[in-house]
Amino acid sequence: MNRSAATRMICGLQPVREAIRAQGERLERVLVESEPRDGPQLEALARFARDHGAPVERLARAELDRMARGVRHQGTIAFAPELSIARLDDLALGPETLIVALDEVVDPQNFGAVVRSSVAMDATAVLWPEHRSAPLSPAAFRASAGAVEYATLCRVTSLPPALEALRARGVTVVGLDMAGDALIDRVDLVRPVALVVGAEGKGLRKTVRRTCDTLTRLPMGRSIASLNASVAVAIALYEAVRQRACR
Amino acid sequence: MNRSAATRMICGLQPVREAIRAQGERLERVLVESEPRDGPQLEALARFARDHGAPVERLARAELDRMARGVRHQGTIAFAPELSIARLDDLALGPETLIVALDEVVDPQNFGAVVRSSVAMDATAVLWPEHRSAPLSPAAFRASAGAVEYATLCRVTSLPPALEALRARGVTVVGLDMAGDALIDRVDLVRPVALVVGAEGKGLRKTVRRTCDTLTRLPMGRSIASLNASVAVAIALYEAVRQRACR
Repeated sequence: MNRSAATRMICGLQPVREAIRAQGERLERVLVESEPRDGPQLEALARFARDHGAPVERLARAELDRMARGVRHQGTIAFAPELSIARLDDLALGPETLIVALDEVVDPQNFGAVVRSSVAMDATAVLWPEHRSAPLSPAAFRASAGAVEYATLCRVTSLPPALEALRARGVTVVGLDMAGDALIDRVDLVRPVALVVGAEGKGLRKTVRRTCDTLTRLPMGRSIASLNASVAVAIALYEAVRQRACR
Repeated sequence: MNRSAATRMICGLQPVREAIRAQGERLERVLVESEPRDGPQLEALARFARDHGAPVERLARAELDRMARGVRHQGTIAFAPELSIARLDDLALGPETLIVALDEVVDPQNFGAVVRSSVAMDATAVLWPEHRSAPLSPAAFRASAGAVEYATLCRVTSLPPALEALRARGVTVVGLDMAGDALIDRVDLVRPVALVVGAEGKGLRKTVRRTCDTLTRLPMGRSIASLNASVAVAIALYEAVRQRACR
């Protein structure tokens, strides 16, 4: 395969379908299994790709397996241009700003799931530091169910100065923290906010916690079970959307 | 290995840790990798198992790989008694009842994630029909992060009559449906409720929809992205907990 370095691989029916819808003829190629067990779905996908001007190639399953390197591909892989990454300074902020910031979330499943919920809830952007974070990998694209194509993604050098910069532009920084003072429905999320979440089991780093205007917790039961990090973000996004609708 | 039929396999650090905490000496055995790359965590786990009266055995990584059959085990596998399944008639219902019912959720990741959020939010029980549902598999245990050990699980023959039986006992059946009439924060979730969710991309079946007292939707953005089924459940559970705290 002769691919430029700035190409990303997307695996699986829904992620590839969303990539076709969003990127169309900008896709380098869409690979579809040549003799698929699940014919109709993959044939429909191949038609969908051609209708959007994306070149389709047929490949044996073994070859797709080799390329996917363990990511579930369901008989299709696409090669797309790298996602464009927004610069922090270029983010258009306003009264509706709702940013999600990730502090060292290294799990691609959680990263992708956060992007999916953020797009579904119309968040402004997803922000994360370049070190110790999940890469924009096929596993993350897959976990986002293709939503990554529609997200405003913003990778920064370091999270604390980025959050400070947002504060300087009128954004309130709200950290999700089990030890937070206030329950989330007592925190004003109608104003422009950045919701910050840490890695599962670790929570926010001290340096990040210090840059937060408020630390808030989600209501939890008496059990020892905790919420998944991406679920916690989704609940916080929902609470913001709910408060804003009640305004 | 000489195991009885009524044994279940649990893979991975957190699921095994929760199984040890919940089951202790009832565990048949805890397998720990003999020469692990990540020594300290697994040694701590082995100690934790012995302290709780669970027999520990060391095994080579290749052997663990073979047993786990593709489920990520992180160097540890436990064998535990089958989970006990509650009978619908035996569920203790009251003013606080908050049941989660799954309609043909076949994905073990989603199933496990729902159990995790349900336990974290103190739901009364998780209910599902025996056909066309995710099995109580190692992948589901793993996705629940061990929360399955603390859940009240209720498997029924068929969902519609089970929901009717709950209604007869004073439970309001609330279906999560993108085409629902009311936004979820307009629905009274303070009373005893069963939240019903369908499979991703398919939603609730007609027969299930008909047994619902109310159909409700979550607020969504303008994008085409949708929420993951287990995330939708978690948001609905949060909304119930929020409303009950405001009472």
